[in-house]
Amino acid sequence: MSKIESILQDMELGLPPPKAPVANYLGTKRSGNLLYVSGRVSKLCGVVGVDVSEADAKIAARDTMLDILAIVKTDIGDLDIIHSILSMQGFVNSGPSFTAQPKVIDGASELLIALYGEAGKHARTATGVSQLPFGASIQLNAVMELK
Amino acid sequence: MSKIESILQDMELGLPPPKAPVANYLGTKRSGNLLYVSGRVSKLCGVVGVDVSEADAKIAARDTMLDILAIVKTDIGDLDIIHSILSMQGFVNSGPSFTAQPKVIDGASELLIALYGEAGKHARTATGVSQLPFGASIQLNAVMELK
Amino acid sequence: MSKIESILQDMELGLPPPKAPVANYLGTKRSGNLLYVSGRVSKLCGVVGVDVSEADAKIAARDTMLDILAIVKTDIGDLDIIHSILSMQGFVNSGPSFTAQPKVIDGASELLIALYGEAGKHARTATGVSQLPFGASIQLNAVMELK
Repeated sequence: MSKIESILQDMELGLPPPKAPVANYLGTKRSGNLLYVSGRVSKLCGVVGVDVSEADAKIAARDTMLDILAIVKTDIGDLDIIHSILSMQGFVNSGPSFTAQPKVIDGASELLIALYGEAGKHARTATGVSQLPFGASIQLNAVMELK
Repeated sequence: MSKIESILQDMELGLPPPKAPVANYLGTKRSGNLLYVSGRVSKLCGVVGVDVSEADAKIAARDTMLDILAIVKTDIGDLDIIHSILSMQGFVNSGPSFTAQPKVIDGASELLIALYGEAGKHARTATGVSQLPFGASIQLNAVMELK
Repeated sequence: MSKIESILQDMELGLPPPKAPVANYLGTKRSGNLLYVSGRVSKLCGVVGVDVSEADAKIAARDTMLDILAIVKTDIGDLDIIHSILSMQGFVNSGPSFTAQPKVIDGASELLIALYGEAGKHARTATGVSQLPFGASIQLNAVMELK
């Protein structure tokens, strides 16, 4: 078992079955050692701060990163090949007065740091938007560096 | 004629005259083989799902990608120099209940795949927002890899 | 004194004290010569076009770029090490009818061009959103190339 999946198991988390992109694009695209990862939305739907609590949204951000890692594993073969997480962008489907987007996206960032340590720390942007595909609460994309 | 422009002609499409950026930035910026392409908005204005139909927005996404390709050609000289499309980000000016952003942005993705085949497939994020420059319906940016 | 900080002084501007990220991420992450810079929000809060004027928002965009440069200096040691600004993404907390996001984000772009000249010109995307962390008016991130 890969080192990263063993850490996931210790955290009592696992990779979900990888889901294909919902439209005409790839889950990931590689250029040299850079891996561009497509935006993925949470299964959790609804407006954070209105229909969805900050705490539930944070868990959904973590679970969306697990969905991303499942796709990345399918595309590159082994999560241990990731050398470093370079950047992540998180969009939060936000009610008019919800301004804690960073705390929500921490759900994904904390998972990456738990799995990859120092190499999992990344540049990040967390933004509020008024609507996401399928009404999802969270959308994440990333740029990773491979070994 | 370049191979890519010949395919465009077969599709009965053509490059529009390239438009300069509307403010203090470049249409594209190169670093090694990476080409960062600025956000470009559609000529079509209005809120998708309210003033503008999904079908019209999808055509506008394709046309915005043609605008981008016109700028890229101006900057790099020949669209055949593009080796691969790495990533695209699409923002859709979305009404409160419009959640089909991926179907709209497919208008741009499908054009890239028609032109560049496997190399045209890319990582992608499609996000709903409440407002875009000039009230445009669509905004697209991209990262491309040059030969 | 570094060349860039000397230009800042001539402009009667200065770097603020660098602020640590507000959550579990880095201010910048380096991969080879690429530097990914995290999203940073303006101290100025409120909805542009409703609570905040376009002119004040443009100044806030410039000041947010100064905040970013302060963080970048902390991380890489000297702003003269920046070879080129590749791309910038700007989000503007926008009222329903505010569509001049490019003019607002010019506040940041013009600073980069004043400091770095031709090398400071960059690809850019300026997008309107309905909410930002802490209710900020502006959010900026960037990708830079180091020497």
